[in-house]
Amino acid sequence: MHDFVYHNPTQIIFGRHALDQTGERTRSVACKALLVSGRESLKNLGVYQAVHHSLRQAGIEVTEHAGVQPNPILGHVRQGVALAQKNRVEVIVALGGGSVIDSAKAIAAGALAAHDVWGFFKGKKSIKNALPIIALPTVAGSGSETNNGMVLTNETTRQKIGIGNRYLFPKIAILDPTVTFSVPPAATAFGAVDGFSHLLEFYLSREETFAPLQDHYSTGLMQTLMAACETALANPRDYQSRAELMWASALALNGISAAGLGRVGFPFHLIEHSLSALHDIPHGAGLAAILPGAMGFAARKNPARLALFAAQVFGVTEATPQLLAQEGIRLFREWLKKIAAPTSLGDLGLSQKDIPTLAANTKAQARLWRLNEYPPEIIEAILWECL
Amino acid sequence: MHDFVYHNPTQIIFGRHALDQTGERTRSVACKALLVSGRESLKNLGVYQAVHHSLRQAGIEVTEHAGVQPNPILGHVRQGVALAQKNRVEVIVALGGGSVIDSAKAIAAGALAAHDVWGFFKGKKSIKNALPIIALPTVAGSGSETNNGMVLTNETTRQKIGIGNRYLFPKIAILDPTVTFSVPPAATAFGAVDGFSHLLEFYLSREETFAPLQDHYSTGLMQTLMAACETALANPRDYQSRAELMWASALALNGISAAGLGRVGFPFHLIEHSLSALHDIPHGAGLAAILPGAMGFAARKNPARLALFAAQVFGVTEATPQLLAQEGIRLFREWLKKIAAPTSLGDLGLSQKDIPTLAANTKAQARLWRLNEYPPEIIEAILWECL
Repeated sequence: MHDFVYHNPTQIIFGRHALDQTGERTRSVACKALLVSGRESLKNLGVYQAVHHSLRQAGIEVTEHAGVQPNPILGHVRQGVALAQKNRVEVIVALGGGSVIDSAKAIAAGALAAHDVWGFFKGKKSIKNALPIIALPTVAGSGSETNNGMVLTNETTRQKIGIGNRYLFPKIAILDPTVTFSVPPAATAFGAVDGFSHLLEFYLSREETFAPLQDHYSTGLMQTLMAACETALANPRDYQSRAELMWASALALNGISAAGLGRVGFPFHLIEHSLSALHDIPHGAGLAAILPGAMGFAARKNPARLALFAAQVFGVTEATPQLLAQEGIRLFREWLKKIAAPTSLGDLGLSQKDIPTLAANTKAQARLWRLNEYPPEIIEAILWECL
Repeated sequence: MHDFVYHNPTQIIFGRHALDQTGERTRSVACKALLVSGRESLKNLGVYQAVHHSLRQAGIEVTEHAGVQPNPILGHVRQGVALAQKNRVEVIVALGGGSVIDSAKAIAAGALAAHDVWGFFKGKKSIKNALPIIALPTVAGSGSETNNGMVLTNETTRQKIGIGNRYLFPKIAILDPTVTFSVPPAATAFGAVDGFSHLLEFYLSREETFAPLQDHYSTGLMQTLMAACETALANPRDYQSRAELMWASALALNGISAAGLGRVGFPFHLIEHSLSALHDIPHGAGLAAILPGAMGFAARKNPARLALFAAQVFGVTEATPQLLAQEGIRLFREWLKKIAAPTSLGDLGLSQKDIPTLAANTKAQARLWRLNEYPPEIIEAILWECL
């Protein structure tokens, strides 16, 4: 076990109609809020109005900042920072998916900075403080509601950068599975794949062929995500499975899965960020298209580790490591098909001719993310495997 | 999934020789410390001196309060409260096992109260504040270092009561597996049993025969505790297994295993508290003696749940629920024997004639703990099963 510091101070309020507590919980923090949200869809569903109403009922002065887009952009965050500063906002309330919560984090840090918010992402400035954040996730997957990370795209320079800082933990996260009843099948599936990938990338970053504590933790959550996703797709209003998707996604990226593993990275997320930057693809769909190929690549490097994955996640054990590794990947691919997710770049309509551009973009990202353990030839080899 | 609030703000510093950071970490909190510790053993080992030195090096003014006994008593806590108040202590540093950390929590709350500390335990007063606590566990098992619970015995009234409060979370917990290299075999085994029991009691408190998220979480930790305990007994200086025991014990009782389960209790701990109150038995040994019998009782009530335990923890699946349940218990008993723990009250030298007194004491405890779901006849039936 590597040395680590674990500290996740986010308070989690979890349950049926927990969002009704938004106003009261927010008031326990501050009285002037910036309400950050995504595009119009939520307004149609009444959740936005309900949250707005709850805030106003509690006497919170609300400034609205809607319109965050799926891959959140710097320009919109800058507008939010200006709005927060102009209105002397004291707390950021984020209602939406990972993009909205990440934008809220950037605004929370940017609002207290004397310089442009992008300075944090370029690594030129460090975050010294941030406004408190109340996270209200409306879709399960990113885990941003209970962690200290954020990813933002500079639409001018076409750079997509992720950073983490202890001031970015939401002060409170209100997880209300009932708001995810209306999440469409594709978004439900892609959210589960996103959570699965967060766990899998750490899992496969290791060499061990025995199963330490973190492996048990992660594979248990993988099993939960798989089973709950299938149930939620079959019955979108099934509370138990929606609750399991929401809580498992949060636990998948709240710091525990990585604690003690030493340096871990997100190689598949790295590739996917290029994929969704170059092609208009949902994040979870991009991950699904990459994972089987990337696992095949990992299996050739360390079949025993993939064999362990097959044993821990699917309970298959009686074969050689090579065969087990292949069986684990086959079963995972079957699950992706069952939830109607793509399983290759080909399924997304990409072909050989797209690889060079994708590889070049990914390599540039790898440099930005300082992921020196993923040299260009590895990235390109993985991409070929994903076709 | 039941509604829940999860909030565990303890910062965990984990790693080789992490205790060397004690002074510096404490100074980040306050400068006048009460150092609470157990009986003399630690002084001999140099750990006590090292921590004391680290505190003094960091400029911390240290008041010493040693001598906490295994089942910590009110009288010693009261002395600690008086000492903390007299010396205007600002932070409590707890170096020891669960008893020491629990005593430190009681002192931390009592030092800021205008009434006697026992008022909290009687439920007559509620904890409104507490001094910050730095927890330095020297043995893996209780999990007290990362949770908000404490158990204390009033040696005059012979009441042993446990309570929880959000102010009792240690501010910082420094987990240094190297200090547990010297934990004797029996204490190593009993600590693992304690952690296992924390997980098992919640696991068996449920009726479901499918495996939700919490089951995966708990059974993964059970597997870790079992394997790591065997390795640590075979090689006491094996860092990986000592680290897994320490981290797994913390994760077993930091709130996650119970989040979403609704009301859960500690029926086997309840019985064990009577056992160790009436007979001079280490807590983990008492648990080990009770668990197989208590599991047998649970298996008759709900064989399918025990069958799931057998499948999740031991990977055995191909039999009827009844047979699987028995097989799970048999394998667990085998493990207890392997780590040289008792497996029945008989192994502790108790016999039929001891049951009535034990049952009467447990019933009184159940009333104190307000565990109405464990009526006298159930407690007595479990005890007979444990012979």
